[in-house]
Amino acid sequence: MYIVIMAGGKGTRFWPRSRAATPKQLLDITGEQTMIQQTVERVLPVSGPEKILIVTNAEQAEELQRQLPVIPAENIIIEPVGRNTAPCICLAATKIHKTAPGEVMAVLPADHHIGSPDAFVASLRIAEKAAADTGALVTFGIQPNAPETGYGYIEYDAGKSTGLENVFTVLNFHEKPDRKRAQQYLAQGNFLWNSGMFIWKTSVILDYIENLLPAMYAGIKPVEELWDTPEIGSAIAKAYEQSESISIDYGVMEKADNVLTIPGDFGWNDIGSWSAIYDIAPKDADGNALRGDVVMVDAGNNFVHAQKTTAIVGLDNIVVVETDDAVLVCARDRVQDVRKVVDELEKKGRKELL
Amino acid sequence: MYIVIMAGGKGTRFWPRSRAATPKQLLDITGEQTMIQQTVERVLPVSGPEKILIVTNAEQAEELQRQLPVIPAENIIIEPVGRNTAPCICLAATKIHKTAPGEVMAVLPADHHIGSPDAFVASLRIAEKAAADTGALVTFGIQPNAPETGYGYIEYDAGKSTGLENVFTVLNFHEKPDRKRAQQYLAQGNFLWNSGMFIWKTSVILDYIENLLPAMYAGIKPVEELWDTPEIGSAIAKAYEQSESISIDYGVMEKADNVLTIPGDFGWNDIGSWSAIYDIAPKDADGNALRGDVVMVDAGNNFVHAQKTTAIVGLDNIVVVETDDAVLVCARDRVQDVRKVVDELEKKGRKELL
Repeated sequence: MYIVIMAGGKGTRFWPRSRAATPKQLLDITGEQTMIQQTVERVLPVSGPEKILIVTNAEQAEELQRQLPVIPAENIIIEPVGRNTAPCICLAATKIHKTAPGEVMAVLPADHHIGSPDAFVASLRIAEKAAADTGALVTFGIQPNAPETGYGYIEYDAGKSTGLENVFTVLNFHEKPDRKRAQQYLAQGNFLWNSGMFIWKTSVILDYIENLLPAMYAGIKPVEELWDTPEIGSAIAKAYEQSESISIDYGVMEKADNVLTIPGDFGWNDIGSWSAIYDIAPKDADGNALRGDVVMVDAGNNFVHAQKTTAIVGLDNIVVVETDDAVLVCARDRVQDVRKVVDELEKKGRKELL
Repeated sequence: MYIVIMAGGKGTRFWPRSRAATPKQLLDITGEQTMIQQTVERVLPVSGPEKILIVTNAEQAEELQRQLPVIPAENIIIEPVGRNTAPCICLAATKIHKTAPGEVMAVLPADHHIGSPDAFVASLRIAEKAAADTGALVTFGIQPNAPETGYGYIEYDAGKSTGLENVFTVLNFHEKPDRKRAQQYLAQGNFLWNSGMFIWKTSVILDYIENLLPAMYAGIKPVEELWDTPEIGSAIAKAYEQSESISIDYGVMEKADNVLTIPGDFGWNDIGSWSAIYDIAPKDADGNALRGDVVMVDAGNNFVHAQKTTAIVGLDNIVVVETDDAVLVCARDRVQDVRKVVDELEKKGRKELL
């Protein structure tokens, strides 16, 4: 199957490690490999490198190719501007459709953590078969374990059989709920987190886009015949200039009539902040997740990624991240506010730190 | 008057800034100048550079001369080993005594902070006159403002006039007290903190040492005639090898019969830890004392000395110190435990960080 990896994310929440040219997916913050290297490695059991496409932007493309020498250069698709996920997916679909119109493609974010790659591959295989056999749009849902308000939810029909094991018919997509509603979703049992991972036949998603987003389709579809020609860059630029900015969820999934979901149980984490990395990291007896040369004196449940020797004395539940040019010291329950540091640096015109 | 500055301190409490070769007195942690530069500048109104002697060790001597080009090289006295303050003072006294036996000398630590240098100079002048006129040992006491248990105390006779304004007769020296006793001292009113600053005639202190520490005197006194000869280094080495290690307080002051004290009110702080520097530093509206390029998000009452851009998010009352090769993040009320970091690094054999 074809794999389309969306690698356009900016990620200000991992400052000081994440920068404009090296956002989360290009960082080795969750393991020895960078997140996109992990994402590629994870799908190699179901796809060859020549069938893996990566959609990114000009700023990240060079580092991305450096990190992924196995991926052919022509498979790195550069968006001239970000226009959310619908144009991105439409563009990648035309490239696959040109040579393999009947094939199944999976669309995956570049910066999600998967704790159980084998289970993930098993789910991908089920999804591929479901998409190929039924012509449906298939989406991975994540079994919620808490009433999270930061994700959209997928409501599925738990009663009706699809004839496929662990594959369910989607009833509705729901926007990020408030706390009370999230608790109801969790209690009801047939609600999943929307992971933003999709599997479908190329021909099917292009048909849906043609019907539901006709202007976008009309703008991007002509690009198809120009893949692997010198005109492709300017054709994409022209198409994107005109394209609206809209997510595939809002533009297609919520309006489509034939959508299936597979509850995924593969240790998914979208790694939204430094504390998410703390959560998945191995910890010592004091609950500290440490990378680097760290001395701890009466300090527990801390997260440290440091280059220099770093000592923590008498402090618990903090995040310390040290890079070549900056240091972050943050309460572990305040990591969402790291973006405020980036805002402040932007305001000060400190481009070298962004 | 002559000034003898004792600059042998090691200072593990200011790690990662303080190191074996650059202890507290050689650091610019309390202002733009280093502490010893401030100490020298502070006494220039009462003394010329040629009358300022500095006693230090071989490890610090080079950096010390670099920081104090105004001090003649022959005025830098190198102790081969540390033997506490009595031999140090005896040694310096012989050098002054050789050329100016009747002169008054002041003995000052290199690493104390004085908030009001003018008041300090005024006190020095009073002390010089008292020492010259009475032949007494004069010591500066610090008016206590809290029941500190970390200092020795000087008990003076508040009733008996010495005939000199603000100069009192010492009744007793007291070791560091427990909390309850410290509260009694504070309530009683005629107790001062022992600052470790002394003023006396050179001939007087040498007489006291001869009487109270005769073996030490016998070992060190022969050095006197060798000052400014090629033999001085080996003569000091020999004298120190035999010398006992003892403080001037214990060896002389507590046993002497003619001791005066001057209550000093010149913003004294012995800068015992990073939090002491926080205490004397200028602070912003949020109570932060910052040096470097620092971004604060919901963070107050913090102390930061950083080279790199440093961001603190959602944390109060912490100390962050970043140097070329290390980072310290410490609760502000746990700064005494910074020495445990140094202990740990010593245990690990990390000499480059000590």
